Amino acid sequence: MVCEIICVGTEMLLGNIVNTNAAYLAKELSMIGVHSYYQIVVGDNEERLSNALVEAMKRSDVLVLCGGLGPTKDDLTKEVVAKVIGRKLILDEDVKNYISSIFLKMGKTEITNNNWKQALIIEGATILHNKNGTAPGLMVQVDNIKIFLLPGPPNEFIPLVEEQLVPILKKESNEVLYSKMVKVCGIGESKAETMIEDLINNQSNPTIAPYAKTGEVHFRITAKAEDMNQGEVIMEPTIHELKERFGNHIYSFKEEHNLNQVVMDLLKARDYKLAVAESCTGGMLSSTIIDLDGVSSVYQEGFITYSNESKEKNLGVKKETLLKYGAVSHETAKEMAYGVLERCKVQASISITGIAGPQGGTSEKPVGLVYIGIGLNGIVKSYENHYFGSRTKIRESAVVSALNLLRLTLLEESK
Amino acid sequence: MVCEIICVGTEMLLGNIVNTNAAYLAKELSMIGVHSYYQIVVGDNEERLSNALVEAMKRSDVLVLCGGLGPTKDDLTKEVVAKVIGRKLILDEDVKNYISSIFLKMGKTEITNNNWKQALIIEGATILHNKNGTAPGLMVQVDNIKIFLLPGPPNEFIPLVEEQLVPILKKESNEVLYSKMVKVCGIGESKAETMIEDLINNQSNPTIAPYAKTGEVHFRITAKAEDMNQGEVIMEPTIHELKERFGNHIYSFKEEHNLNQVVMDLLKARDYKLAVAESCTGGMLSSTIIDLDGVSSVYQEGFITYSNESKEKNLGVKKETLLKYGAVSHETAKEMAYGVLERCKVQASISITGIAGPQGGTSEKPVGLVYIGIGLNGIVKSYENHYFGSRTKIRESAVVSALNLLRLTLLEESK
Repeated sequence: MVCEIICVGTEMLLGNIVNTNAAYLAKELSMIGVHSYYQIVVGDNEERLSNALVEAMKRSDVLVLCGGLGPTKDDLTKEVVAKVIGRKLILDEDVKNYISSIFLKMGKTEITNNNWKQALIIEGATILHNKNGTAPGLMVQVDNIKIFLLPGPPNEFIPLVEEQLVPILKKESNEVLYSKMVKVCGIGESKAETMIEDLINNQSNPTIAPYAKTGEVHFRITAKAEDMNQGEVIMEPTIHELKERFGNHIYSFKEEHNLNQVVMDLLKARDYKLAVAESCTGGMLSSTIIDLDGVSSVYQEGFITYSNESKEKNLGVKKETLLKYGAVSHETAKEMAYGVLERCKVQASISITGIAGPQGGTSEKPVGLVYIGIGLNGIVKSYENHYFGSRTKIRESAVVSALNLLRLTLLEESK
Repeated sequence: MVCEIICVGTEMLLGNIVNTNAAYLAKELSMIGVHSYYQIVVGDNEERLSNALVEAMKRSDVLVLCGGLGPTKDDLTKEVVAKVIGRKLILDEDVKNYISSIFLKMGKTEITNNNWKQALIIEGATILHNKNGTAPGLMVQVDNIKIFLLPGPPNEFIPLVEEQLVPILKKESNEVLYSKMVKVCGIGESKAETMIEDLINNQSNPTIAPYAKTGEVHFRITAKAEDMNQGEVIMEPTIHELKERFGNHIYSFKEEHNLNQVVMDLLKARDYKLAVAESCTGGMLSSTIIDLDGVSSVYQEGFITYSNESKEKNLGVKKETLLKYGAVSHETAKEMAYGVLERCKVQASISITGIAGPQGGTSEKPVGLVYIGIGLNGIVKSYENHYFGSRTKIRESAVVSALNLLRLTLLEESK
């Protein structure tokens, strides 16, 4: 079954709103095995919406039109669909009463005439009750094609998809898709893909799809199956093979887990406290960690030692070290991590010092050079990293590496 | 001039990422008077991408294809465009060298073969240099149609649009739109809009468009004019009126200025040093400040005092204060800001302490309650704020308020 998503609204063509509905619907569809090959955005324009509709009916089994069901003259989705499929619009008394009741609830007794436009229904359509708004959803069957018309505001659209569209399509979809994420950190995107190129090239069921994000690569493994248990069985050999190839670089198999959470869970399980010293990242690592609710049992405190003076004063980095090796060096990173361990009396520490640019690089110490220190139970190690891109990108990359290095150090310690 | 946006990527059809590029580009285009009637998303599929391309070439003057320029086999935008317009792909030595240099910078000497795919250029294309990644942008002219091929990751896409695509199209657009931003902070979106509702309703030339972002509202004033000088004259009365109504709440009239930069410039002009103490924001304020290149002459150091213990130890907050009033209180915020002023010997300080949630709220101190302390030349004041939304949203709102409160305090001091 192939579904096409047509979002209607000039506000998207002007860039005033981001089309989050398409992403939401696409994800819901993929989970019930409904394919989606095109997403279209058109404005509130009769001719162009007609064209998009006619094209979509040629190539898709299900059309979801989203938006353009409001009370104003601009809103013309229902009118255009009725015209294209040659059906009439009919006033529905139940919908009319429902609209009245909503206005009464909001304390509005005077209902302007244009609101009754929302009670007009395409002949033969199924009404999909919208508990969060005045525009009902509609489903029209035209030969073998199902056309859904849903309101655009996400707080109306999402419940209608979840409670009405998905159950209807699920009944007709003969496939279940079961998927798992393999989240890899510490290997570049192209290298990671090369490492499993043979698997990617020979995939059929399950399939493997790579997704890059700063400092990480995620592989989505998707199996077509009759139920979840069979899905698990089908993907087991692939998961096993990925474990063999990526080893410790895999930090999670769960969609909802991020690297930060995994590292904090490792610390929590060991009852370790963490403190942090940041220079070029300037609080970004700490801010990322603290974005996690309930992290106060692990994260103790942090120092943003942007100046040399504060590296000396707050962390006890030696003046001679700064003079001899510079603030961006293995030696300084180590002394920062050590200072944090000692002064904060914690089991784990991270330090970051580097050149985030765009200014401040030299041929010996170029922009993107970042040293990361990891302290664990009195032992301190430092790592040299080279990143590329904007100031923000370099800082984000350093944050991901720092979390991953602490993760690997914790795993190493447990061996 | 009509432009069509075609985003390529199966990850969008699966709903794994939201298509923010289309919204960003649409906004940029609308600002230079380029119309956009369709946005299309297709997967990494030759046939469907070909179809979309052929359709778009029939109805648009400019095509922007976004995504599918990576090193893997999945990425086939360049290959499909070359095939549809009947041109060859040629290895470009300059691009090849650039890719090598990036890998070297990242300390990678082993470059896998698939990476050279990114050095293939469509015959006759203009190369649009991508300083943030290995896939260059391309522009191909086919009869009267311009086809842009740009990489999908937003940190590569956005700079290429801003620095290369927009200037190219701007030259050919026959309307000149002159616009200015009025950036307002410290007033809610709907209140700010209500304050100038009459102006918004009666607009023709210039137009006023509001854009809300966390803690701020920006109004874009756009005038159609023959040149910039005439544009300036046309919008002058509107700008004057907005100044009258919003007063000190306006922090800038420049598109490229953000609040952070404005505040740092105020500090720099006074030769003031800043230090910061953060609790619930956990480094987010410092990280925001340090995102600004060259801020080291202003920002001295920061403390992330997430625990009570570290508030006492690092900032000298009194134990009795924490016991009597709690960590989230006017008193603690003031002592934090004062501690920073004293211990760091700076002229300006900011402290933030609050409940970011979702856990930890009480009826007296609900989630979203945040106290901000501002210290300036020995004088410390604190402010109570109530924010709404997710943990991240509350923390982001606190960062914006903190910067704005320091800005207002600096302006007050200069009076």
